Amino acid sequence: MSIMKPEAESSRLANRYRLTQMLRTAGPTARIDLGAATGLSPATVSAITAEMMRDGQLVELKGGVGENGSTGRGRPKILVDLDPEAGFVVAVKLSINDVQLMVGDYRGQIARLTHVALNTLALTGQQLIDTLIGHIEKLRQEEEGKYRRLLGIGLAAQGLVAEGRLVWSPALSARNVDLAGALAERFHCAVSVENDANCIALALKSQAAYRAYDDIAVIMLGYGIGMGLILGGALYKGRSGAAAEFGHTKFQPDGPMCQCGKRGCVETYISDYALYRDARLTLDLPDGDAAHPSEEQMAWLSEAAASGNPVALGLFEQAGRVLGHGIANVIAMLAPQKVLISGAGVRAFSFMEPAMRNSLEHSLVDELVKGSEVEAVAWDKDMTGLGIIAQLLDLAERPGA
Amino acid sequence: MSIMKPEAESSRLANRYRLTQMLRTAGPTARIDLGAATGLSPATVSAITAEMMRDGQLVELKGGVGENGSTGRGRPKILVDLDPEAGFVVAVKLSINDVQLMVGDYRGQIARLTHVALNTLALTGQQLIDTLIGHIEKLRQEEEGKYRRLLGIGLAAQGLVAEGRLVWSPALSARNVDLAGALAERFHCAVSVENDANCIALALKSQAAYRAYDDIAVIMLGYGIGMGLILGGALYKGRSGAAAEFGHTKFQPDGPMCQCGKRGCVETYISDYALYRDARLTLDLPDGDAAHPSEEQMAWLSEAAASGNPVALGLFEQAGRVLGHGIANVIAMLAPQKVLISGAGVRAFSFMEPAMRNSLEHSLVDELVKGSEVEAVAWDKDMTGLGIIAQLLDLAERPGA
Repeated sequence: MSIMKPEAESSRLANRYRLTQMLRTAGPTARIDLGAATGLSPATVSAITAEMMRDGQLVELKGGVGENGSTGRGRPKILVDLDPEAGFVVAVKLSINDVQLMVGDYRGQIARLTHVALNTLALTGQQLIDTLIGHIEKLRQEEEGKYRRLLGIGLAAQGLVAEGRLVWSPALSARNVDLAGALAERFHCAVSVENDANCIALALKSQAAYRAYDDIAVIMLGYGIGMGLILGGALYKGRSGAAAEFGHTKFQPDGPMCQCGKRGCVETYISDYALYRDARLTLDLPDGDAAHPSEEQMAWLSEAAASGNPVALGLFEQAGRVLGHGIANVIAMLAPQKVLISGAGVRAFSFMEPAMRNSLEHSLVDELVKGSEVEAVAWDKDMTGLGIIAQLLDLAERPGA
Repeated sequence: MSIMKPEAESSRLANRYRLTQMLRTAGPTARIDLGAATGLSPATVSAITAEMMRDGQLVELKGGVGENGSTGRGRPKILVDLDPEAGFVVAVKLSINDVQLMVGDYRGQIARLTHVALNTLALTGQQLIDTLIGHIEKLRQEEEGKYRRLLGIGLAAQGLVAEGRLVWSPALSARNVDLAGALAERFHCAVSVENDANCIALALKSQAAYRAYDDIAVIMLGYGIGMGLILGGALYKGRSGAAAEFGHTKFQPDGPMCQCGKRGCVETYISDYALYRDARLTLDLPDGDAAHPSEEQMAWLSEAAASGNPVALGLFEQAGRVLGHGIANVIAMLAPQKVLISGAGVRAFSFMEPAMRNSLEHSLVDELVKGSEVEAVAWDKDMTGLGIIAQLLDLAERPGA
């Protein structure tokens, strides 16, 4: 190895990384298609796949489908895929009163998922750390016989994360908990602690549909309004970790009060709590905690709009108008190739969309609008977990990381 | 070289690059201080400086100052510095009716500056290309005896630049001029074409005061409102080149008309043209083109504020309020470590600043505001040129570029 030319060695690692990423997104693939998709020569693909099989990271799948997708005559293609057992990661999603523990396999899929009920708001920082370590240790012991090695541990939560510390989260009363430090000390592996909107941005970026885009803004509609930014191909969160607070960009000076204590933030027009707060002024809404509306309460409001209730329709229309205005600011500042809208709040996106598009066109010249495609992405609760897993596998394998 | 370990080779190049960048910012430095500033060992500094002297890029300066800055007793330190003649770049700044041509030396300084009067708005794209090539060729012939080699050619202009094409500029009637292609074909060297606010952001990033910051938003006040973004240590402009249009982020839905044809953009409250447009509704202003106010016209407005004229003071106060609101959106979205305000419009910043700070605090929670320092930077017309030069030298030397 030490007599290999430096350029050759670094491009070998980069190419191996590219093939691994490609397989993780595309699934089982013939070598010739791997070459076509990456632009690598057949000899390079052959050398790298041989090396990865030797290292136990790749398996051949016999009896793949033939050309044109038929299973019929002719010589079947041999497909290769990552060996799911080559390694595993543990992903933890922390929410109010719920801890979701996931095992991610080497293919980047969720291989196991468990929930633990926990009164998160009552825990001290140390109690949270001890509890999480206990659950992760138990999971590790149960799983480590099945996989060759533990590649990393990651945690996601709503709120502000900086340098591995959970500075503030709506799920916790404790502040500034050094989770990454405690987990790294205990488990001696790669550890990540991340804001959940950032995890979702990473999960979307790793999907085939978005892999080619370097600059993506992901807006998360739900109880609050979150954002994850992929800029220049990587997660952008600022040195303090406080970037991408789209919910607290402004619609109107001196607008309605927001939960942050300031006025006119886009969140105070678009979020579940804001929509429900405004709806209950005139509508007879189902019982429940009006300040923290449940999925059922929000579904009721969407159904009211679907059945033509003018108050509900008006609220979603106004939310769409504010969302379009906020997206205009995102596009003016960052010109992302894609603006993706997801989160539980996309349930009512169809009632917001016409006003959102109208407001965007009303706010910004065509030359700027046309470079950024705005689209909704169906909400999938597993996306946070998939994002943590993608990030950990990337951390473990990216050349030079 | 081919038996050097790959890690050693790539870190040697990276270290050489770091020392070069350091010297370009700090000027003459003793080897021991280079080591202290970069964390490199004395042996590494010694090896790299010897190599750079052999390559003709570094010179020793005898008779440097002693410890404590004294010129007195004891053994004087030997300082090293970049050899200004190791290479040169040509930087061109294109403005309405003016082309500024600069020679940048290997230390990154402007070694020569000339102006050419030119009716820029009357030129076709091809005429512009031919004229620029003529002037650059003349300059190259005059200068190439003095320097060892031409390292690059760069051009900056206001407007939208994408992939080396000047898509749109207020200085030109021609659209979509492929300047980078034409210059590269003619001169066979590194070529950059860049928006002028981006050049200024690069110039500031290369200054000692800001070198340590990875995330910097530079806001340019003047005839229009520009922005340059340094994110993750590098210029961010989006794939389309259209990012950082801070001037067209929004203050208020359905606010006053902006030059872009939309309403309520921050530019239509803060820019020279907007301030002058509003001032002339009630003030008796000096003669001149009111739609394109000159520096003298704007100076008159600043002096009116300085002498306590309530209309002028009110306009700058409103501009400050809008600027603070716009900066709140920048901080919420990007959490830059520094927000720097410059451009010709900083002439009146003292009249805007109290309202700007008040509006920022009014708009955004302390936790977000406190992570980003907002400060004005005195306007220096050479900054665009210094930014082009810094970018070209970086392009020519960055490992892996």
